This record gives sequence, C-alpha cells and structure tokens, in this order.
Amino acid sequence: MTTMTTMEKAMNDKTGSVLLSTEETAVWLRERDGFLIITHRRPDGDTVGSAGALAQGLREAGKTAYILRNPETTPRYLRFVEEYLAPDGYKPEYVITIDTASAELFPKNVGDHAGAVSLCIDHHPSNTFYAQSTCLDEVNASCGEMIFDILMTLSGSVSARTAECLYTALSTDTGCFAFANTTAKTLRVAALLVEAGAPHRELNRLLFRTRSRGRIKIEGFIYSGIEFHFGGAVAFSTITRDMMEQAGASEDDIDDIASIPGSIEGVLAGITIRELSSVSDCKVSVRTSPSVDAHAICSRFGGGGHPMAAGFSLESTVACIKESLLAVLGEYLPTL
Amino acid sequence: MTTMTTMEKAMNDKTGSVLLSTEETAVWLRERDGFLIITHRRPDGDTVGSAGALAQGLREAGKTAYILRNPETTPRYLRFVEEYLAPDGYKPEYVITIDTASAELFPKNVGDHAGAVSLCIDHHPSNTFYAQSTCLDEVNASCGEMIFDILMTLSGSVSARTAECLYTALSTDTGCFAFANTTAKTLRVAALLVEAGAPHRELNRLLFRTRSRGRIKIEGFIYSGIEFHFGGAVAFSTITRDMMEQAGASEDDIDDIASIPGSIEGVLAGITIRELSSVSDCKVSVRTSPSVDAHAICSRFGGGGHPMAAGFSLESTVACIKESLLAVLGEYLPTL
Repeated sequence: MTTMTTMEKAMNDKTGSVLLSTEETAVWLRERDGFLIITHRRPDGDTVGSAGALAQGLREAGKTAYILRNPETTPRYLRFVEEYLAPDGYKPEYVITIDTASAELFPKNVGDHAGAVSLCIDHHPSNTFYAQSTCLDEVNASCGEMIFDILMTLSGSVSARTAECLYTALSTDTGCFAFANTTAKTLRVAALLVEAGAPHRELNRLLFRTRSRGRIKIEGFIYSGIEFHFGGAVAFSTITRDMMEQAGASEDDIDDIASIPGSIEGVLAGITIRELSSVSDCKVSVRTSPSVDAHAICSRFGGGGHPMAAGFSLESTVACIKESLLAVLGEYLPTL
Repeated sequence: MTTMTTMEKAMNDKTGSVLLSTEETAVWLRERDGFLIITHRRPDGDTVGSAGALAQGLREAGKTAYILRNPETTPRYLRFVEEYLAPDGYKPEYVITIDTASAELFPKNVGDHAGAVSLCIDHHPSNTFYAQSTCLDEVNASCGEMIFDILMTLSGSVSARTAECLYTALSTDTGCFAFANTTAKTLRVAALLVEAGAPHRELNRLLFRTRSRGRIKIEGFIYSGIEFHFGGAVAFSTITRDMMEQAGASEDDIDDIASIPGSIEGVLAGITIRELSSVSDCKVSVRTSPSVDAHAICSRFGGGGHPMAAGFSLESTVACIKESLLAVLGEYLPTL
C-alpha cells in the first residue's frame, strides 16, 4: 500500500488531467465521499453494469454513491442501475464518468456536471482527458474489468450484486467473450465473478440467448438486404426506420446488430448504417478485421472508437453515406 | 500422488466398467502406451478438440497416440485432428473413446474397435458404461475440461497446440461460454488456455464470428418459417433438404443452428427438425429452459442427451414428427 501513497501522479501533458492507475483510483475513492456516477449516451451493458457495480461497491465500503438517471437507459439494462438512481436535488461532492471517452458522449441531461467531472474511468484509446483525473487502461476489454480491479483494491472482494453488474459489463462488451478484445484476464475475472455469485446462466440467457420476435424479424430483413463491395471485403447492412416499424423492433432488439455484416466470411469491414430520428440522421457502425482500422475510417467522418470497432453519426441519408464511404474505403483496405 | 495409487477403484454395479477420476485416468495413461483415440459420430468441436489435445498431450509425454479417421469430420474441425490420424494398419494397444455416451455413437468405421474400448472419457449423464474403464464427470461443460485436468496431472502443463485444441473443445460445447452448462471452472480453464497460447481471437472468429453466405441464407429461411405452439412456449424450426440446397449450405453451415428456436423470448422448448438422407429420415434437436427436461422428451423417441439439450433420430417425415411431438409435449411443459 505504501507504493500507492508515495507514487507520483502522472499528468497528461496536453490536458493537465491527472492519470491514475486502478490502485490509485481505489485510494482516491477511499479518501473521498459523496459520488455521482454518470453513464454515457446510448448506454450499453459496460457503462451501465460498471456504474451499478461501482455504486454498489462504494456503498458497501460505507460511501454515499448515486447514479445519474440516463434517460436513454433501455429496459434491458435498467435493472442494473435502478436502485442507485440519484434523487432530485442530490448534490455530489465528486462526479465520476464511466466508459465515456469524450464530452460529446455525456448524456443529454448532464447539465452543469459536464464541466465538473472529477474522475473518468475509461478504456477507450480515444479518451480526450476531459476529467480532472483519468483512470484509463485500454488493455481492458471492458470498463468492468477496471472496476473489478478498483473494488478488489478498495474492499478485497466483490458481493454477488456487484458481481452481477460486473459480469454484465464484461460479457456485453466482449460479445460473451467472443470478440477480439477478450483476454485471459477477461475470462479469469469472469470466473471470479461467477464464483462471487454472478447469475451468469440467467444473464447469458437474458443478454445473449434470448431474442425477441422483433429481433428475429429485423435480422431476417438485414440478411436479405446485405450488400457486398470490394470483391466481398466490405459488407453493408442498413436498418431503416421503416424496417424497425415493420418488425415492431425496439432499441433493445437491435443491440449489437452492427456485428452482423462483419461476421460474414471474407468480409474485412462490416458497416451498418442506421436511420435514427429521420431519414437524414444516421448512425454508422464499423466492425473490422485486424487488417482494417475502423477508428481511422470513422475519424474521417468525425467519429472514432477502437481499432476494430468504431462509429460515427452524420446528418445525411443512407444512400449518401454509403456513397461517401465507398469513395474512401479503398484507402483503408489491405492490397489484395 | 499416493492417494491415487492406493485409491480403490469404483465399479459400475450393472456394467462392471471401472470408474476412474481424471487423476486416476492420468495414472492409467502414464502406465500404458499405444493409444487409438476415437471421436463420435457427427463429430463436434468437443470430441474433435479433446481428441486432438489428448493425442498431442500423450505424444508430448512420450507416448504413441493416434486418432481414428472419422469420415464425418467437417473441414471446420479437421485441422485439429489431421496431424494425428492413424496410418493404415496401426494396431493400438488401447482404444479410447471421447465424448461418446453409447456404442450407437461410434463412427461408422469403428470396426472391431467397437467391442474393445479400454477407456471412455465422457461428460454425458446418459453414458452407458460400455468401456472397460470409464472416466465420467457430468459436472464438466465439455470433455475438454476433463482432458485439461488429465493432462495437467500427467504433465503439469499444456502446450500452445494442446491449448488450441482444448479451447476449441470448451468454447464450442458452451456456445462460446454462453450456454447454461458454462461454469466458473470452464471460464478459468479457458483463461489458462489463452495464457498457454491458445489463439482464442482467431478461433473465436473462425468458430463463432464467421458466417458463410450459406449460413446467412439458411438462417433467413429458418427465421421466416418458425412456428409457435403452446402459447409460444414451444417453437419449431425446420431444415429441409430443399432449403439446404437453395441456400447452398453445407454441414458446417448449420452447426449449432438447433439453438435458434429455443433462443426466442418466451420459448421454453425449441425444437429443430432436420431432414437428413431423405424426407423420411429426420434428426430432431431439442433445446430447453431449466423447467423442461429435454432428455426426457427425447428418451420418449429413443434418443437422449443432457437435461437442456438432447436429440433423437426418426425415420419419419417432418410433418409426422411434429404431430407426434405436439401430442406429447404438453406432459413436459410446466403448468402455466
């Protein structure tokens, strides 16, 4: 423990954000109280599960910790944060963001907290160091693994409830341990979480093995509409507002649906274009093989993410976005 | 080690098969040489990966070990056993079956070996104890976990090649750790295999994240043809010879396709009926929630398996099989 208190804090040269290891973060938390935890826009299992686990773990350590209600949290994930939601008027001493690489990803109701983030816990290489302190470790497949490390340093164990939230974080961010970001550590932490009481059978069934009839329908539409380009190296799939309506599909129904085109044999870049609020408001998800840089492709359009999983949003139509992508994609594909 | 040599061997009362623990099995192997390993009919990743790992591990321990060429091994799995295939005329001292619950599951070319199985390593509760010695532990999600235990006792470590085969066994039998049979042990062994050099990213991509165009087409057919019964508690999917032909789909393309109907929300029993050599030669796969006994349902038709995953074959048409099942399924569903 002496190493941590005497450890000199590193500083991001450009932003001045203090860089903390997970062990230093545990110490940081131990020395403070009165936390508000914020999840990111379009919250996924990692941000929600990690937030729930951190709130629960901090409470078990005797702290006051709440989670900011994120209006975009879907029913699938609400159960992991519901009991920790901050009451109206809660005034935190410290604001913590989870799995949130930049201020653009703050939830819509972030309000004044946006300029007062004390700590950011994240695993995205694209992190902009907007917080006063940043705990960033891009080696981790999920923020959940970082929260596990932090809570183990803080308390020496995790409760069954914490394990449930963390298992959700790890498993959703790794596609149930099938994505390329999965490491031996991910699997070992998952084993420890199952031993700590995470109901992994129920969670796997809920998160990975249960598909709604809406999901089945939307997948049917997608399979019949996939387009191949560059000799099969690029596959496009499109999810229009019309398809969503016909399938009676909800947001929960299309979770992780962006992985479909990239999963077809021979495809190096799988691209999913989805209409959001209107036909000219689209979200694009890019999933790639190691030979293609998804982050670089998406940066070109003002987005970003991980090397093999990135995205961007554009106020344009599906057809125009496809055309724009086709014009530049050749630059990012390996010479065949 | 003394506990093992002095340990009294248990005996199956009915069959006389000597029951061995994985530790005793390691000792059994250490004391012998000249092995032929046999995989089961319609070989899956567990039987093939476990056989490859056992052959490799035995060779690393200085033994002579070969695998019987199983004519039904698909290209997807051949790479895990190819280098160990027995040459013509190989005369083994000891025949070992892997993941093979009963003599009916022996491969077609088993020949005289059928009556001379020295050791069976299996994890199916339906095992019939046909071998002289049986190492059976139904707690394990895969035979691969048992082979891991055996090789760790035998040699104290596993090589990268062995780890590759075992990762294939574990991951395919658990649907990449998503099926209900997955335990903390499965995840921990998987972590150790990744550390030992199993190329889990490449394997996951090959086994779980790559779908052929044929697979995409056949899934499309299945999604549009799913039938619900018993208020949505039972879902039937059908794979006809005609569908396979239209999709240009191979055996590899329909691996694990039986899990689709059981994965739909509200479905307690998902049943897949597949035409094999003719329209009146069908294989039926039953996947259930914990409240429905798949093994009991399939036993009724001369088949069996695990409580939540079982199957049977019948010389009858899809329509007749569906009718027969609908007549009895009510007995196996919970009172709603």
